[in-house]
Amino acid sequence: MAGERILHKELSERIIDDKKAASFFKDKMVVASSGFTKSGDSKAVLSALVQRAQTDPLKITLMTGASLGHGTDGALAAAKLLHLRLPFQVDTVLRKAINDGEVLFIDQHLGETANLLKANNFPKIDIAILEAAKIQEDGSIIPTTSVGNSAAFAALADKIIIELNTSVSLDIIGVHDICSPGEYPNRSEIHIVEANSRVGTIAIPIEVDKVIGIVLTDKKDSPAEIAPADETTKAIAKHLVGFFNDEIKKGNLTKSLMPLQAGIGKVANAVLNGFIEGDFENLTMYSEVLQDSTFDLLDSGKLNFASGSSITVSEEYYHKVFDNFDKYRNKIILRPQDISNAAEVIRRLGVISINTALECDIYGNVNSTHIAGTNMMNGIGGSGDFARNAYLSVFVTQSIAKGGKITSIVPMVSHVDHTEHDVDIIVTEQGLADLRGLAPRQRAKIIIENCAHPSYRSYLLDYFDRACERGGQTPHLLEEAFDIYKDLREKGTMAKQIFS
Amino acid sequence: MAGERILHKELSERIIDDKKAASFFKDKMVVASSGFTKSGDSKAVLSALVQRAQTDPLKITLMTGASLGHGTDGALAAAKLLHLRLPFQVDTVLRKAINDGEVLFIDQHLGETANLLKANNFPKIDIAILEAAKIQEDGSIIPTTSVGNSAAFAALADKIIIELNTSVSLDIIGVHDICSPGEYPNRSEIHIVEANSRVGTIAIPIEVDKVIGIVLTDKKDSPAEIAPADETTKAIAKHLVGFFNDEIKKGNLTKSLMPLQAGIGKVANAVLNGFIEGDFENLTMYSEVLQDSTFDLLDSGKLNFASGSSITVSEEYYHKVFDNFDKYRNKIILRPQDISNAAEVIRRLGVISINTALECDIYGNVNSTHIAGTNMMNGIGGSGDFARNAYLSVFVTQSIAKGGKITSIVPMVSHVDHTEHDVDIIVTEQGLADLRGLAPRQRAKIIIENCAHPSYRSYLLDYFDRACERGGQTPHLLEEAFDIYKDLREKGTMAKQIFS
Repeated sequence: MAGERILHKELSERIIDDKKAASFFKDKMVVASSGFTKSGDSKAVLSALVQRAQTDPLKITLMTGASLGHGTDGALAAAKLLHLRLPFQVDTVLRKAINDGEVLFIDQHLGETANLLKANNFPKIDIAILEAAKIQEDGSIIPTTSVGNSAAFAALADKIIIELNTSVSLDIIGVHDICSPGEYPNRSEIHIVEANSRVGTIAIPIEVDKVIGIVLTDKKDSPAEIAPADETTKAIAKHLVGFFNDEIKKGNLTKSLMPLQAGIGKVANAVLNGFIEGDFENLTMYSEVLQDSTFDLLDSGKLNFASGSSITVSEEYYHKVFDNFDKYRNKIILRPQDISNAAEVIRRLGVISINTALECDIYGNVNSTHIAGTNMMNGIGGSGDFARNAYLSVFVTQSIAKGGKITSIVPMVSHVDHTEHDVDIIVTEQGLADLRGLAPRQRAKIIIENCAHPSYRSYLLDYFDRACERGGQTPHLLEEAFDIYKDLREKGTMAKQIFS
Repeated sequence: MAGERILHKELSERIIDDKKAASFFKDKMVVASSGFTKSGDSKAVLSALVQRAQTDPLKITLMTGASLGHGTDGALAAAKLLHLRLPFQVDTVLRKAINDGEVLFIDQHLGETANLLKANNFPKIDIAILEAAKIQEDGSIIPTTSVGNSAAFAALADKIIIELNTSVSLDIIGVHDICSPGEYPNRSEIHIVEANSRVGTIAIPIEVDKVIGIVLTDKKDSPAEIAPADETTKAIAKHLVGFFNDEIKKGNLTKSLMPLQAGIGKVANAVLNGFIEGDFENLTMYSEVLQDSTFDLLDSGKLNFASGSSITVSEEYYHKVFDNFDKYRNKIILRPQDISNAAEVIRRLGVISINTALECDIYGNVNSTHIAGTNMMNGIGGSGDFARNAYLSVFVTQSIAKGGKITSIVPMVSHVDHTEHDVDIIVTEQGLADLRGLAPRQRAKIIIENCAHPSYRSYLLDYFDRACERGGQTPHLLEEAFDIYKDLREKGTMAKQIFS
């Protein structure tokens, strides 16, 4: 089974077991691992490292593409293995360790990690663990269900461990498009001019001498768990699809819109499913993650092509996709995340980005990451790469949470991930605020009126009116801007303001 | 005099006076004007419009490259001419009108205005006023001391008025490099791979039928007023130059560093002058504004080339530059601001950006625009275009203002223009904080220790320590994060916290 997957003779002699691989790691090492939104991650080696740490403790810096699957991040945190983690995570155990100050976490634009490594922002990578479907004659590796930062890690790491995953269909060969903007100071253009532009190679080049071991595994990716659409997410999708229809009628957009990017999760899925119903045609995606709804859209004939950095699907869709791969082969590309999320390409293509906000303020600033301004949820992910450079930057959120105890439209966000400049459209189940061409005071009125939950509107309007009396480009009453968080902390609800 | 400057016969018959030009404007029109950091702005037509408004009031939307000279923005505001202004201003009268809510202001990334216009974020431009040094045989115009958004305005406006400025030396012909990334959805790469790459034409194409008048003027640009370096700015420059020297010693940078960008003002000037003394060679600039210090650096032989969107110099340097233009002709390029500030190019070249902060917080978030979170100072300008995409993003500020009544290092900035992700280095006269590769809690310690004024350090440390006790990725005590602004408002000083 492994034989047909290792075509480089010398490398075929470097197969080791996961325990041996785990023994290579030393305290304080900088470790990089493949993996993006739970796909194509290290399944054997990191897991063996957790085992080893039970009796032989050590601390590492761990960087990845994005989140890991199989609870690996949680297991690493529980084993006290992590000194520093970047650039993204979604694990409840790790999250707690981060917020407790036990693990340092660098929250990073996912398109920037490779650039920052090349600009000497971190110590050198000691060992990179890269999942692969196949090792080619020249030692280059075919990635699996994600590319993430693997190409950059391979180029920059001192040593490499390859996790050869025999569960991944060899049909995947040819789907990846590996390219790099090059090294400073001699970087060149990224020649992608359409979502389906192919500009690279199908495999990641590997310096064979760096490979200190090949570990075999047949463990599959963790399946994505997507909550089904509900009334709220359907309402959000309806408002947004209605907006696009209006823009088409006005002649601002064609039925093909512009290339789409969508974050992950149930709102994004509901929105993408909304495109199936609407009067759209020849859509394309230039996104990060190809998820269940991406394949539904492809099947519907509405979507012609999807570019991303990973395939992250539910168990049902995993079979659907890989049992019928010929159907999708020419309709998808997986790219390195510094290419899928490249400012250059996103702006050139004119991507319409759709991302989820934790909270938005009345002037259009967005918090995507920090609960009550302090506790990390997941990370900024690629939302900033896309929102800053998008043709149209959309943020979606439910207007309230916890049965109304929390409003997602607030006077001033408790943490800023995306400034007003990077936010064109805000959508909640209440409605849509089109902020393009509006000054802050105009933005406030339309956000409160269209997006805030009715039970919080008068509170927000009162704040805004009194702030305007004091004046300013962005009127605020700093001494009470965060009162609702105090109420939430002390009384368990922001709604106190409504009744006070 | 005008004859040799209008080589297009038909256009030479469209000369009108400024009063006639002013009569073309109607209430509610969208007007665009050339002008970037007080250079190459409309001197005759906007001024005549102010005169007209005394007896014949009207309101317009006015967009420019950046700031206008000659107090024009103030005169427009005083004449109640402005409904909406974008994307930048530096005028005290206009600033007050904005903060009083009399003029709507859209503060915008200077590199994005042209993109947003092309993405239908604003109504169509009715009239564009474009300063030119010469009109060529084909009707195309040679810009003067700035390019700004003129090329985009010329392409997008319904009608065009050309202000032919006979005071500008014709030696300037050939300095401009006009190109465009194209129109959605068919944009292409911007093929700039070095600061001195030439990829366009020397003139802005003009549809001759759009030109409704040519107004002659011989008024010069407002000279830049630059406060001389003082002990504080010299100390900031010294810390920063020392940092670069250390990076060279470590092998992280060569003596040529990477292409430099510097904001305007006395700190930036002091820093650029610092490069003259240091052990640097073959420097280049990929910036917005070529200022006095740029020409000093060119004269010193340390700087090989400077790319920008405008030449904004003092009266003394205006003569120095234009009386010896052959010396500089091949060492400078002026570009459209969507090219000088293009995310694509900034990231590709690996620009080192140096911009001024109003205040920074202990986690590295920066406020560049809003005094006490509400009142607009000037605008974000190009700082965001550069900071987000830079190889190394530096922010400089004095640690205190108003004799210590204000600290520029605060627990939480009152307005966020640049998030922690976009800020690598903070420098005050106290020292330098290198934030690369650090998590928020690590950032806080080094910013407080290295950059805060000694008199505020214990206050900031106490805030940080108590916030850490509560926990979080970015520990905050929201209920007291803005206490210093309350003190400033009520007692006229933030220093109350020091003694309480």
